[in-house]
Amino acid sequence: MKRTKVVDALQCTEYGTAINVKGWVRSHRNSKAVDFIALNDGSTINNIQVVVDPETIDAETLKSITTGACISVIGTLVQSQGAGQTVEVQSKEIEIYGLCPSDYPMQKKGQSFEYMRKYAHLRLRTNTFGAVFRIRHNMAIAIHQYFHEHGFHYFHTPIITASDAEGAGEMFQVTTLDLERTGKGPVPYEKDFFGKKTSLTVSGQLEGELGATALGAIYTFGPTFRAENSNTPRHLAEFWMIEPEVAFLDKEELMDLEEDFIKYCVQWALDNCKDDLAFLNKMIDKTLIETLESVVKERFVRLTYAEGIDILEAAVKQGHRFEFPITGWGMDFSSEHERYLVEEHFKRPVIMTDYPSEIKAFYMKKNPDGKTMQGTDVLFPRIGEIIGGSVREEDYGKLVHEIEARGMEKESYNWYLDTRKYGSCPHAGFGLGFERLILFVTGMQNIRDVIPFPRTPKTAEF
Amino acid sequence: MKRTKVVDALQCTEYGTAINVKGWVRSHRNSKAVDFIALNDGSTINNIQVVVDPETIDAETLKSITTGACISVIGTLVQSQGAGQTVEVQSKEIEIYGLCPSDYPMQKKGQSFEYMRKYAHLRLRTNTFGAVFRIRHNMAIAIHQYFHEHGFHYFHTPIITASDAEGAGEMFQVTTLDLERTGKGPVPYEKDFFGKKTSLTVSGQLEGELGATALGAIYTFGPTFRAENSNTPRHLAEFWMIEPEVAFLDKEELMDLEEDFIKYCVQWALDNCKDDLAFLNKMIDKTLIETLESVVKERFVRLTYAEGIDILEAAVKQGHRFEFPITGWGMDFSSEHERYLVEEHFKRPVIMTDYPSEIKAFYMKKNPDGKTMQGTDVLFPRIGEIIGGSVREEDYGKLVHEIEARGMEKESYNWYLDTRKYGSCPHAGFGLGFERLILFVTGMQNIRDVIPFPRTPKTAEF
Repeated sequence: MKRTKVVDALQCTEYGTAINVKGWVRSHRNSKAVDFIALNDGSTINNIQVVVDPETIDAETLKSITTGACISVIGTLVQSQGAGQTVEVQSKEIEIYGLCPSDYPMQKKGQSFEYMRKYAHLRLRTNTFGAVFRIRHNMAIAIHQYFHEHGFHYFHTPIITASDAEGAGEMFQVTTLDLERTGKGPVPYEKDFFGKKTSLTVSGQLEGELGATALGAIYTFGPTFRAENSNTPRHLAEFWMIEPEVAFLDKEELMDLEEDFIKYCVQWALDNCKDDLAFLNKMIDKTLIETLESVVKERFVRLTYAEGIDILEAAVKQGHRFEFPITGWGMDFSSEHERYLVEEHFKRPVIMTDYPSEIKAFYMKKNPDGKTMQGTDVLFPRIGEIIGGSVREEDYGKLVHEIEARGMEKESYNWYLDTRKYGSCPHAGFGLGFERLILFVTGMQNIRDVIPFPRTPKTAEF
Repeated sequence: MKRTKVVDALQCTEYGTAINVKGWVRSHRNSKAVDFIALNDGSTINNIQVVVDPETIDAETLKSITTGACISVIGTLVQSQGAGQTVEVQSKEIEIYGLCPSDYPMQKKGQSFEYMRKYAHLRLRTNTFGAVFRIRHNMAIAIHQYFHEHGFHYFHTPIITASDAEGAGEMFQVTTLDLERTGKGPVPYEKDFFGKKTSLTVSGQLEGELGATALGAIYTFGPTFRAENSNTPRHLAEFWMIEPEVAFLDKEELMDLEEDFIKYCVQWALDNCKDDLAFLNKMIDKTLIETLESVVKERFVRLTYAEGIDILEAAVKQGHRFEFPITGWGMDFSSEHERYLVEEHFKRPVIMTDYPSEIKAFYMKKNPDGKTMQGTDVLFPRIGEIIGGSVREEDYGKLVHEIEARGMEKESYNWYLDTRKYGSCPHAGFGLGFERLILFVTGMQNIRDVIPFPRTPKTAEF
């Protein structure tokens, strides 16, 4: 008999038909004459209720079916008499696939997220993490769908790299040298796998530009790495980035793309993750759905960095206190400042433009004023910067000048500079930290709770 | 004026309207009274022809627009008089974004793939690599689409790992230790970023099983790494894998899934990559489209390993010579043997099952005979093994026994064993090497030519 997924069974109205559902027991309680088993198979946050007549099954066996056990139930789909569900399964036959001993770490309800992080391999079976990772899946699908519909090509930039995209990342080294035998002093890289020092990528953007200046429009979606010793709810050593890059795009079009793209993703969640969002809205953040809806509805504010500074300085004058002081033009914004603009001042997302060049990366195109650049970062409620974007400098001479002025090695960037040497074209792009998007869409607070197996300092379990 | 992509311009029939196209010059030739510029923007393999009246543009400027230059053309869309295209652009105004010096490495036609690999950052602008990477994009989209439609959840397994999925992979080490200062002898891993020895993943399967036994059905799609010193047209140190894993799936259903999935991908290419496939069929492999069509049409042969051995032995008796000898039951098949079965014996794809346990991984479920296992590898023309699949051993005791019998450290797998300890369930899955699929669908011969920036021994450029 073919198995029916719980998500499909719950929508079925062919009462009286035979059905086979399989899954894990979320709860098992007994009243006078019947037992109720709530069964979940991961296809939806909702459980299907299995009603068991104790006469149909050996008493010890029935008792052994505890929370976490895995079973297969053959029975009849019937209209539910109880509240909270429309259908249930009247059990005829239960097969036990795997029992669950009483030391099952996910047995109790209401355990802390910190506790559950230690059991990242089992927390996936809880309501909250089921919801989070179904939404994570949906966001990935939305992203691919959006770019495919808009003529972008998914482009795999390298993970192992001999270059440093930002010129300043703290990188993980990748090696096949035997560390017990290298000894002190110069490292024999000629014997290493790639014959040179290599690291894990901090961004696929530079290679993405190679793709965009050939295929017209590309996007990356892959893991990136930062060896920063940061133990915060916002940092991961391994995280996923989406980096679209588009030939012939100017600043206005880039902002349109950013806004359209992220609204598409959030709308996708509202359309396709209703039950999971309702759960998270109830359990995690009572304003979640409202926040998502407002982001989709409102046109994003477009604001220059200088205007942003003015607003923050005015706020300070009016008595607002920031943890990090507002030091005027040239300062870098902290997430606190970004959130003030978004949550308190404008009450909607902001695209901030025209940052001082020196606080941004070397490849960003300068404005004619010589001191600001064509950046277009998107600032979001609860998150702060969710997208970092810019028009790229397409002039060979200006780019070389910037590389040299920053003390970077021009030779390492010759392949990158070739895009400006041979048929250079105006282009622009942005980067989105995938986990930041998931934090926003799920209402979760800690970035370690929106990736299945977080990598942080001293932690690489599973 | 809004830019029109070449792919859209070529389908436009609103003759006489003003149009703006942008792109890179593929060729520039002049006849008596007009110049013809073939322009490509990466959105399609096809160029749009720009017709330039030399009277409308300065002669020196026109001459400077050589192959590889990047330009923007405003003109009128007209029905083409010439053969080979239906529309062309009558130029009114040309803006030069970037000229292309005569040392442009992609200038000449017919350069070898080996030559072009040295210019992986520029080969993307050629017809062949444009086609390959548009198809690569489409295959990624098909994969996500297939799994999303079938209720699988995209699941990000970790890249940096402290475990070794296969128990035998040659792995890249990941470290933040200063290699110049570690010295000989024991490595101070307590000072390393993760506080222990970590490597790049060789497979996401074990973590994928954690996902499947919670979310029901998952798939991974991410980079994997092998530090094998293999310089062959089939090996990469960094490649992308797709690894679906499904709870409650048995061997028959697994084979159905494998066949349905890969046919869906190939059909997607036939439906969505017509122009690129036609080009590759003409330039790379004259049997390409025919091969793709035959794979979609034919039902795959389902064959046990023992039957496969019998066929190969019979072939030897009849005079067929294999490079690697057929040594009977217990031997591992080489790609040559697999291709014989597929290309010569059956002339269609084969799903081979029930391999000897000892030549396969520890997690595969044994048959009751105690010596074969429930493997389900898909063998393809030209490629050999394209999918490696199996039912997984779900019995805790049997799995522990296998781990110990193979001399693996049980403690390292405690988290994996927990899936069998708490509510264990039957499940199955497979792995597909993405680049092998791309080799098959494009007809390309060398795996370095189907990933943008190949990583191989001594090579980590760009």
